Amino acid sequence: MSRKVLVISGDGIGPEITTETRKVLDVVNARFDLGIEFDEALLGGAALDATGIPMPDETLSKAQDSDAILFAAIGGPKWDDVGRDLRPEKGLLQFRSALELFGNLRPAILYPQLADASSLKPEVVSGLDILIVRELTGGIYFGEPRGIRTLENGEREGYNTYKYNETEIRRIGAMAFEAAQKRGGKLCSVDKSNVLEATILWREIMEQMAPDYPDVELSHMYVDNAAMQLVRAPKQFDVVVTGNMFGDILSDAAAMLTGSIGMLPSAALDKNGRGMYEPCHGSAPDIAGEGKANPLAMILSAAMMLRYSLDAVAAADAVEKAVGDVLDQGLRTGDIYSEGTQLVNTSAMGDAVAAAL
Amino acid sequence: MSRKVLVISGDGIGPEITTETRKVLDVVNARFDLGIEFDEALLGGAALDATGIPMPDETLSKAQDSDAILFAAIGGPKWDDVGRDLRPEKGLLQFRSALELFGNLRPAILYPQLADASSLKPEVVSGLDILIVRELTGGIYFGEPRGIRTLENGEREGYNTYKYNETEIRRIGAMAFEAAQKRGGKLCSVDKSNVLEATILWREIMEQMAPDYPDVELSHMYVDNAAMQLVRAPKQFDVVVTGNMFGDILSDAAAMLTGSIGMLPSAALDKNGRGMYEPCHGSAPDIAGEGKANPLAMILSAAMMLRYSLDAVAAADAVEKAVGDVLDQGLRTGDIYSEGTQLVNTSAMGDAVAAAL
Ligand SMILES: CC(C)[C@H](C(=O)O)[C@@H](O)C(=O)O
Ligand SMILES: CC(C)[C@H](C(=O)O)[C@@H](O)C(=O)O
Repeated sequence: MSRKVLVISGDGIGPEITTETRKVLDVVNARFDLGIEFDEALLGGAALDATGIPMPDETLSKAQDSDAILFAAIGGPKWDDVGRDLRPEKGLLQFRSALELFGNLRPAILYPQLADASSLKPEVVSGLDILIVRELTGGIYFGEPRGIRTLENGEREGYNTYKYNETEIRRIGAMAFEAAQKRGGKLCSVDKSNVLEATILWREIMEQMAPDYPDVELSHMYVDNAAMQLVRAPKQFDVVVTGNMFGDILSDAAAMLTGSIGMLPSAALDKNGRGMYEPCHGSAPDIAGEGKANPLAMILSAAMMLRYSLDAVAAADAVEKAVGDVLDQGLRTGDIYSEGTQLVNTSAMGDAVAAAL
Repeated sequence: MSRKVLVISGDGIGPEITTETRKVLDVVNARFDLGIEFDEALLGGAALDATGIPMPDETLSKAQDSDAILFAAIGGPKWDDVGRDLRPEKGLLQFRSALELFGNLRPAILYPQLADASSLKPEVVSGLDILIVRELTGGIYFGEPRGIRTLENGEREGYNTYKYNETEIRRIGAMAFEAAQKRGGKLCSVDKSNVLEATILWREIMEQMAPDYPDVELSHMYVDNAAMQLVRAPKQFDVVVTGNMFGDILSDAAAMLTGSIGMLPSAALDKNGRGMYEPCHGSAPDIAGEGKANPLAMILSAAMMLRYSLDAVAAADAVEKAVGDVLDQGLRTGDIYSEGTQLVNTSAMGDAVAAAL
């Protein structure tokens, strides 16, 4: 089997955490004889600086030619003033869209070793294990028309379009129902169908699909209530499915409930299950280059990639176990540090995981 | 001075909490010789049942003729299947829009007596006092075109339009900057300007306005990060200003941080400061009629109304003090109950506040 992985290290802390993740992947590649071939490509600010655009054609063709993509993070204040169509984020959005990576799986899991790091009371979050399934290539992120125009009275207006068609709703719905079947059997679809027509159709299609998944219990919740319920009693959720914008907001809130967003991997999948794997956190330009970044979310993203796209389950298990081991040893980067544990930098953390393998 | 108040008791628990709030208002009206004249009107599901539409003309003209509006809550599953344009929520949205109540002030305050009720650790939320300023008559809630249409390939698509013009942004910006001046001097504007053009203009206008308020420190945050920061370290915020949809989500999350959304009042104001006052919570149809609802948020909304729209500051102070007194006495409705306190029903809570006056 071919195992071609495209690595995109991006901006900010991206290159640092990529270095550590490669250390770990090189160990398992050799140890489990996986035969992974790595290639690299530019996206976001780094691509803009080198080529003048945030998503070069070469990056896309390399991605199309790979079995999986491992991505760090992009963006930063350095590119605040480039035109709207040149922004690093635009490159990421074009990339997701061109590869049709419509299904974003964002788990929020509380690591027992890090229970203290949460801002919530232990009894509210202990054992937390939610999966947010976010639609990633539609909705208001991509809807046309969009722009800033001058009105007849001379003032300007900014506008965007939020839309979903039945096909888009069905394919993300199927991914979410299937995920719920493999987990706790509960799916909560989040919308604002008391106000937004786009989500009235969303709710209707989810209802239509439910009979095909008799082992899944489907419920619906308005997005404002979902934001409250995540804070009040997050363990009531198993799988949550929602659109691109609501998913962006709720998945970040859910990740932060664990207090350790520096630990959470995510996947963006196409209809064949080919995927891009990336940490839930961003490019953290404020600490870039300082050796403070936590590489574990990207390392765990690599484990997710091994499991779901590269058919290397034993290697994935080994990486996840090694991460658990370094946490048990008490090693912590700054973001997850608490009294009585040992503060280490980015590369010491990567070394420790590689050594634990 | 004229003091005409229109009371809208709405649906679900609305009528119950309105009864208790009227008890309290009747006491202060007499005691402080305020001369408030009360009138009543229908909105939402109750209006639909009685008149066939969710916002009767009579309700609007009574509102236009009042100095302030006191509103409970609307909506419920009973009206799930009425047409989109007849939904109780539609009546509320039409009402906000017709009265140009564009400025929604939603405080999130932790009552020291209720510190235990929060799902967050005490050190994260103790002393919490945030004000969310939400734009209430624009954005995706009202943007046209909107609807569900059939595409050329025969499938349906739901669509909405998110838009803000300069005038709309400026007037909510002014309200937020002024609120920050009267509070801690910090204003955080929340947008998604790395993706949405509507919010690129929003950020630009906020920046343009900042020099007019040299005593306010303006910052910007993406909405996904804001959702995280509210969970991680909510006390970093003083005043937050954002659009209608993001404000709906973030203000509910912020309110829930306190663990006592049943305690939080809110105001929706027009450009002259005329307002509608209402609890942050909804109509809670699941407990309607059971005497379980907490009337304090609506009673505190009445206090806010006395203070800001009826020039009755002493009466407002007295009501707020009376609420503090009943909490000190240990009286609690179910939503804020904890061990060692005394569980009371809706009317006993209203009686206690009236007695404490
Ligand atoms: C960087 C940004 C465009 C992106 C998004 O909003 O999708 C990020 O917040 C994410 O969630 O991956
Ligand atoms: C009932 C609903 C239309 C309303 C809104 O979304 O504005 C409510 O959630 C609120 O926040 O007042």
